Amino acid sequence: MTIKKVLIANRGEIAVRIARACQEMDIKAVAIYSQADQYSLHVKKADEAYQISTDPLSGYLNPHHVVNLAVETGCDALHPGYGFLSENATLAQVCKDRGIRFIGPSADVMKAMGDKTEARQTAEKAKVPVTPGTGNLKDIDEALQEAGRIGYPVMLKATSGGGGRGIRRCNDEKELKANFDRVISEATKAFGSAEVFLEKFVVNPRHIEVQILADSHGNVIHLYERDCSIQRRNQKLIELAPSPQLTEEQRQYIGDLAVRVATGCGYENAGTVEFLLDDNDEFYFMEMNTRVQVEHTITEQITGVDIVKEQIRIAAGEKLRYRQDQISYRGFAAQFRINAEDPQNNFLPSFGRISRYYSAGGPGVRTDAAIYSGYDIPPFYDSMCAKLIVWAMDWEELLARSGRALHDMNIYGVRTTIPYYENILNHPDFRAASFNTGFVEAHPELTQYSLKSRRESIAAAVAAAIAAQAGL
Amino acid sequence: MTIKKVLIANRGEIAVRIARACQEMDIKAVAIYSQADQYSLHVKKADEAYQISTDPLSGYLNPHHVVNLAVETGCDALHPGYGFLSENATLAQVCKDRGIRFIGPSADVMKAMGDKTEARQTAEKAKVPVTPGTGNLKDIDEALQEAGRIGYPVMLKATSGGGGRGIRRCNDEKELKANFDRVISEATKAFGSAEVFLEKFVVNPRHIEVQILADSHGNVIHLYERDCSIQRRNQKLIELAPSPQLTEEQRQYIGDLAVRVATGCGYENAGTVEFLLDDNDEFYFMEMNTRVQVEHTITEQITGVDIVKEQIRIAAGEKLRYRQDQISYRGFAAQFRINAEDPQNNFLPSFGRISRYYSAGGPGVRTDAAIYSGYDIPPFYDSMCAKLIVWAMDWEELLARSGRALHDMNIYGVRTTIPYYENILNHPDFRAASFNTGFVEAHPELTQYSLKSRRESIAAAVAAAIAAQAGL
Repeated sequence: MTIKKVLIANRGEIAVRIARACQEMDIKAVAIYSQADQYSLHVKKADEAYQISTDPLSGYLNPHHVVNLAVETGCDALHPGYGFLSENATLAQVCKDRGIRFIGPSADVMKAMGDKTEARQTAEKAKVPVTPGTGNLKDIDEALQEAGRIGYPVMLKATSGGGGRGIRRCNDEKELKANFDRVISEATKAFGSAEVFLEKFVVNPRHIEVQILADSHGNVIHLYERDCSIQRRNQKLIELAPSPQLTEEQRQYIGDLAVRVATGCGYENAGTVEFLLDDNDEFYFMEMNTRVQVEHTITEQITGVDIVKEQIRIAAGEKLRYRQDQISYRGFAAQFRINAEDPQNNFLPSFGRISRYYSAGGPGVRTDAAIYSGYDIPPFYDSMCAKLIVWAMDWEELLARSGRALHDMNIYGVRTTIPYYENILNHPDFRAASFNTGFVEAHPELTQYSLKSRRESIAAAVAAAIAAQAGL
Repeated sequence: MTIKKVLIANRGEIAVRIARACQEMDIKAVAIYSQADQYSLHVKKADEAYQISTDPLSGYLNPHHVVNLAVETGCDALHPGYGFLSENATLAQVCKDRGIRFIGPSADVMKAMGDKTEARQTAEKAKVPVTPGTGNLKDIDEALQEAGRIGYPVMLKATSGGGGRGIRRCNDEKELKANFDRVISEATKAFGSAEVFLEKFVVNPRHIEVQILADSHGNVIHLYERDCSIQRRNQKLIELAPSPQLTEEQRQYIGDLAVRVATGCGYENAGTVEFLLDDNDEFYFMEMNTRVQVEHTITEQITGVDIVKEQIRIAAGEKLRYRQDQISYRGFAAQFRINAEDPQNNFLPSFGRISRYYSAGGPGVRTDAAIYSGYDIPPFYDSMCAKLIVWAMDWEELLARSGRALHDMNIYGVRTTIPYYENILNHPDFRAASFNTGFVEAHPELTQYSLKSRRESIAAAVAAAIAAQAGL
C-alpha cells in the first residue's frame, strides 16, 4: 500500500467510518475538528486529531486549509467523506497540485458530472436513457418554449446543484415564470453558477441508484443497486439494497447502464449513478454522485465488499480486486438514518445531550454511529447522528428484524426519527414493497405515535416484576 | 407460529439474544432474574421480567421453579440458553409433562448424548470414527488393563461430565492410579454419577465442531463447522467459522459425519457435534452438545441462518426452511469472548462497575453484549460479559478487521481479555492459521502488554491536537 497516512476532511459518523477503514489497512488516520466537535467520536477514533477552526464550519469548508494541514501532518492522501467538500473540484485539484492523493475522482471528472447538463450528455452518448430535457437555458423565453415542447410538469434545475437544493417543480407557465429568477439567484449563491436547465418532471418515481467501483486501469464494476425512494423533501430516510421493487432482469439491466455511464465519463474511484424509475417501469438517468454515499453501508452488507477500503486502494493506484462475475449479493439490507429530530414537530432538529445510549446488537445488525452516552450533539451540523443498518436473508425477515433493531436502539435525551421509522415499517405499502418518492408526503399520519406508550410498556414490565417478587 | 410466549430460563447475553429472536417472531419474551441481576440488560430487553430468587443462583438452577413460572405467566415454550439447566434432562421432561414446549431435544436424546459412553456408541454405530477408548469401567484394575491396551497418555473422563470438568489426563500407570478415585469423587459430586471411562488422549488436537439443525420431521442439515482450538483450560476464547485449517474436502467430510451422528441419535433442534482433529488429519468424534452454543453467532454470520429463530420454529413443529443444498457460507467470522478478567493476574475475574462502554461498530462487526455504561457486573456468574463478532470476506481481512474491532471496543472500569486477544491476533502462528488447543498454554508471553501504552497513544493524539490548536 503506497498510502500511509490519510487526512479525513470530515466529521461525525463518516469520519469514524473512514478511520475504521484506515485502521484495517494499517494506515494512520488524521482527524480534523471544529471547537464544537472537540468531544466528537471521530476525534477519539483517529490516530491524530487537529482542531482546524474555532467556528463550527469554516474549517470543514476551506479546501486550502485542509490540504495545508494534510501536508503539514505528513499525510499522503485525503478522504473527503460526503457533504462538505466532497464534491468540490477545487479540493481535488489542490490535493493533486500539492502531491496529496485525493480519494475520489479527478477534478475534471468531478466537474463534468457535477455539471448536470454535461452529465446528461455523457449519459446520452453512452446510450443511457435520460428524461426529456434541455441544455443550459439562455433566458425565460427559451425556458417557456422548451417547457411547452417537453410538457408540464417540468423541473427547473441549477446545473451545478445537488443535495436537493436549486431545484423547483413547475406545474405550468405561471410557475415557471415565477421560479426562473429565483432558482438562478439560489444557484448563484449556493453553487457560484447561474446556469439552469429543464427536465421533464416524473411524478412520484422510485429512486434507484447503482454503486460503482472504477480503478485507474480502466476496470469498472457495479455492486448492484439501492432503493432510496423513502425520502422527505429530497432527503433520504430509509435505503434498501437490493431494491425489493425490481426484477432480476431489471437489476442486471440497470447495473449495465450504470457501468456505461461510469465508463463513458472515464470515472475513477467509488461513485453512484442515480436513476428514476417511472410508473411504466422506464429507467431514466438522473445524476452521478462522485463520492461515497451515506447509504454505501447496505451495499457492503449484501455484497461483502468494503467500499471505503476499495476507495483507498483505488486511490493508491491498485487494480480492482474483483471482476464483475465475482460480485454477488446475498439477502436484503436496510439503512435507517437516525436523525436527532422531532418528527412530531415538523422534524425540528433536537440537539443536546444524549443522556444514555444503548446501541442495538445481535444478528444482522450493524451500527455506524457518532454518539455515546453523555455526548452533546452540537447544533451546527446535519441532524443525522447514527445509522442503523439491518441485514436479513429475505424481505420478510428484514421487516421483522428491522422492527426489532429499531426497538433495540435506545437514545435518551433527544428526540429521534426511530418511532417514525417504526410506523413506516408497519405500513402495508412499505411491507408490500410498493412505494415511491411520494410515500412520505402521502402519509402524514405516520408521525402519529405516543412516546408514552413506548415507555409505558417498559413500566408495565417493571410493575409485573415487582408484583411477582412480592408473591415469591 | 404455534408458540406465542417464551420463558427464557437464563441470564446475560444469551437471554438478550433469545429475547431478540422472540421479538423478530412476534413472540412475547419473559425474563427471569435473581436479585443481583435486577439491573441486567436481559431484564430490560424482555416483555416481562420476574425475579425468581433472592440468592444469585438457585432460581436459575431449579427446573421445577422455572417451569412453574412459565406455566403461571402463560408461556407455551421455554428456551434454556446455554449453561445452567440447558443440558438438564429433568427440565426437558418437566416441560413436557406440564405442556410447555422445550426449545431443545427430548429428555431421552439429551440423556443419551449426555452419557459420554452412550454417545460414543451412537457415533460408532453411525460409522463415525471415535478415539480408541472404553465403556464404563468397573474398577482401577480394568482401567489399568485398558490403558495398557490403548497406550498412554489416556484421558480419564466422567461419563456424565461436561464443560471441561470431571476430566483428567494420565500420562502413565502412576497418574492413572492417582486420579482414578479423584475423578470418581468429582463426578459423583458434580454430576451425580460415579461412572468413568478412558479415551486415548490426543495431544494438542484441533477442536472442530459442526452446527446441526434437525426438525421433528426427520430432516437433518449442517451449517458447516467452527474451529474452537483457541482455548484456555478447556474454555473457548476465540472461535472461527469456517475453520481456516480445513480443506474444502475435509469440510464436506466432517459435515457429513456430523449429520450421521445427529441422525443416528434421532436428534431434534439445534445441536453441535464436536470433533478432535489430530496431527495426522484424522477426525475423531468427541461429544455432542444438545443446546445452542456460545459461538453459534459466527455460523450465523457466514451462513445467514438465524439459529435461535430456527430453534423456536423447530420446537413449534415446523419443517426446516432449508435443504442442505440451500446452505452456503460466505467469508470468515471470528468471535472473541470478552471476559471481565485480568489476563495479567492469572485471568482473575474483574467484576464491578463499567464506568463507560463504547461498543464497536462499522462494517462486519456484530456485538452481542450484556453490558452498558454504568452497569455493575455481579460477581456471581460467568465472567463473559460480551461477545465481539467479526465478519470479513477472507482470512486476511478478518485478521485486519478483528484488530480494528477489538481496538474499537472500549470498556472502562474493569479489566477485560481484549488486549490479550490483540496479542493472539498478532501472533505469527495465529495469522498463519496454524494452531491447536495447546496454543494458549504454549504462549504464556501473550499476557504481556502495557495498558499504559494503549492509553498513551490516545494521550499523544490529544497532545498533538492541543499543540496544533495553539499554532493555529
